[in-house]
Amino acid sequence: MTDDLTGAALPLVPSLVDPARAAMLRQRMDEKTKPLGALGALEALAVQLGLILGDEAAALHSPQLVIFAADHGLSARGVSAYPREVTAQMVDNFLSGGAAASVLARQHGLALTVVDCGVARPLSARPGLVDRKVGLGTRDALEGPAMDGRQLDAALRAGVEVLAGLPGRALLLGEMGIGNTSAAAMLMSRLLDLDISRCAGAGTGLDADGVSRKVDVLRAVLARHASARSPTEALGAFGGFEIAAMVGAIIQAAAERRVIVVDGFIATAAALVAARLRPAVLERCVFAHRSDERGHRLLLERLEASPLLDLQLRLGEGSGAALAWPLVVSAWALLHEMASFSAAGVSTAQPPRPQG
Amino acid sequence: MTDDLTGAALPLVPSLVDPARAAMLRQRMDEKTKPLGALGALEALAVQLGLILGDEAAALHSPQLVIFAADHGLSARGVSAYPREVTAQMVDNFLSGGAAASVLARQHGLALTVVDCGVARPLSARPGLVDRKVGLGTRDALEGPAMDGRQLDAALRAGVEVLAGLPGRALLLGEMGIGNTSAAAMLMSRLLDLDISRCAGAGTGLDADGVSRKVDVLRAVLARHASARSPTEALGAFGGFEIAAMVGAIIQAAAERRVIVVDGFIATAAALVAARLRPAVLERCVFAHRSDERGHRLLLERLEASPLLDLQLRLGEGSGAALAWPLVVSAWALLHEMASFSAAGVSTAQPPRPQG
Repeated sequence: MTDDLTGAALPLVPSLVDPARAAMLRQRMDEKTKPLGALGALEALAVQLGLILGDEAAALHSPQLVIFAADHGLSARGVSAYPREVTAQMVDNFLSGGAAASVLARQHGLALTVVDCGVARPLSARPGLVDRKVGLGTRDALEGPAMDGRQLDAALRAGVEVLAGLPGRALLLGEMGIGNTSAAAMLMSRLLDLDISRCAGAGTGLDADGVSRKVDVLRAVLARHASARSPTEALGAFGGFEIAAMVGAIIQAAAERRVIVVDGFIATAAALVAARLRPAVLERCVFAHRSDERGHRLLLERLEASPLLDLQLRLGEGSGAALAWPLVVSAWALLHEMASFSAAGVSTAQPPRPQG
Repeated sequence: MTDDLTGAALPLVPSLVDPARAAMLRQRMDEKTKPLGALGALEALAVQLGLILGDEAAALHSPQLVIFAADHGLSARGVSAYPREVTAQMVDNFLSGGAAASVLARQHGLALTVVDCGVARPLSARPGLVDRKVGLGTRDALEGPAMDGRQLDAALRAGVEVLAGLPGRALLLGEMGIGNTSAAAMLMSRLLDLDISRCAGAGTGLDADGVSRKVDVLRAVLARHASARSPTEALGAFGGFEIAAMVGAIIQAAAERRVIVVDGFIATAAALVAARLRPAVLERCVFAHRSDERGHRLLLERLEASPLLDLQLRLGEGSGAALAWPLVVSAWALLHEMASFSAAGVSTAQPPRPQG
């Protein structure tokens, strides 16, 4: 398979479409001791998991929450409510256990790994931190491409290689990077051919004026890179290192038939890019939540994704993926552990009868 | 306090409204290392939990999933897709571990208790089964009140006394009773003065004709008991034993300042009745999910309830409450375990600046 990659070795991702197996899994759910369809969205999720994971009931052991972190040159242009130092400070917070993602990872037994893809400050080595620094933040995308071809390769490869070294069959995707809703919004705008005003939102908390200024900046950046139309060209033009690493991680995880729990707006933008390169990755994606960030609803719709949660979250870090994780475990457990009508000796539905 | 109770000793439930404490809890969430409001609905939930539970970080230990089970005389009139034997069969299934509620209780470490409030068949004693049988199912409500005053008292008291004997500060409410969406729909219709066609739905899986016949039956029952207008009169007229027991359980749990995780349509109808008797119970209620049952959305709106999940569930058994439980634990853990900006050394938001 050829595509427009600049050299990174991204694995192929075959389709899991298998109507016979899907029908078998649906029938298995239908025979469980519950009215037909009564577990709602969890039934479709159970079938999806069965197609990804096969028949091993313990397949969801060792779930991995991986937070890809990097800085953005564009953050100097006032596109975020927070200063860029916060990226490195939050990496410290993830690893010392005080961030939302840390708390949720403890609650659910998720192994937490932070991948430094290009935080703008040197970070000291610590357990849980993987150094895959591509640079000290991307370039200012208004001045030129956020990254060059070599950096794009390195970031994609970081995601691929980090994933290849992790145990288990479940990846929960998180990210940290002041300014990265801007990069995600530009990727969405370019790849879906949508006006940037429908894609860019408040991020970590801009007010209306701030959003308006952000949209103006991003419109100028998009115009500056009008010829960056392919997925990898757009990724190189707009960044960031952590989004490119997530793209690599998604494709590698999909190739290994892992379940990929996609967090919020930025992770979904990475899934969009990955899907343009390897369409079958979406078969492995479980969308955790619909976030409060402006563009997320439309982005999910374009991916035909039905997220599990809708709690007005807008935090990132994989926090939404971690919150949705027990629902994924539930769907899998219900498929494997619920009794059938015949095994439990429960009567099935009766034909409608006239009132007597 | 006097009300129209027929003699059952329902405890008083004082209001927890405390603006100063609520403001303190909101400020505590605001100081956490996340953008203001970025945890969405979980922030309001954390404040609610703090008002109910006080300051003990371990307050959510020993969560109790209690399934109240009983049969309904009206089930002989074709208002359900399933025969009434299923109530007893499902009690067996809960206790032997094969039901959805059993699987979810295991996943989340919920103690599972089934309360026989009036299943139409004698049930043999087993661990996890509490015998509070009020009768062998309610009477056919088209012939007369579903229960008499003595039975109503006994059912309410069953809920009160079962709750008083359980450890912990968290109650997850479940129910089982073929025909009980009919009783719940009639309670909703009567107490909220809504036409029954807006309240009654497919239940366990009636087709459109079946729903239409069900609505006709329920309209006749409502007309038969036109004078049953108070909460307890309506409960006596329409049943069921398990709904009355849930009302008692909700009021007792609220009086003990437990968090009450309300499941689907039937549990929400019980919360409606309980709230008419003791309005402050709603301060202790966390609504787990918006179910696919027709009347549930409107019922939640009338209670001004924002459910945590919207997964098109329509199973009952407390399954939705169990699925939402980890979100409750998360909100509490985030309140207690997340670092503040100052403790973690993370910079706070900067004032908006002009693009440079």
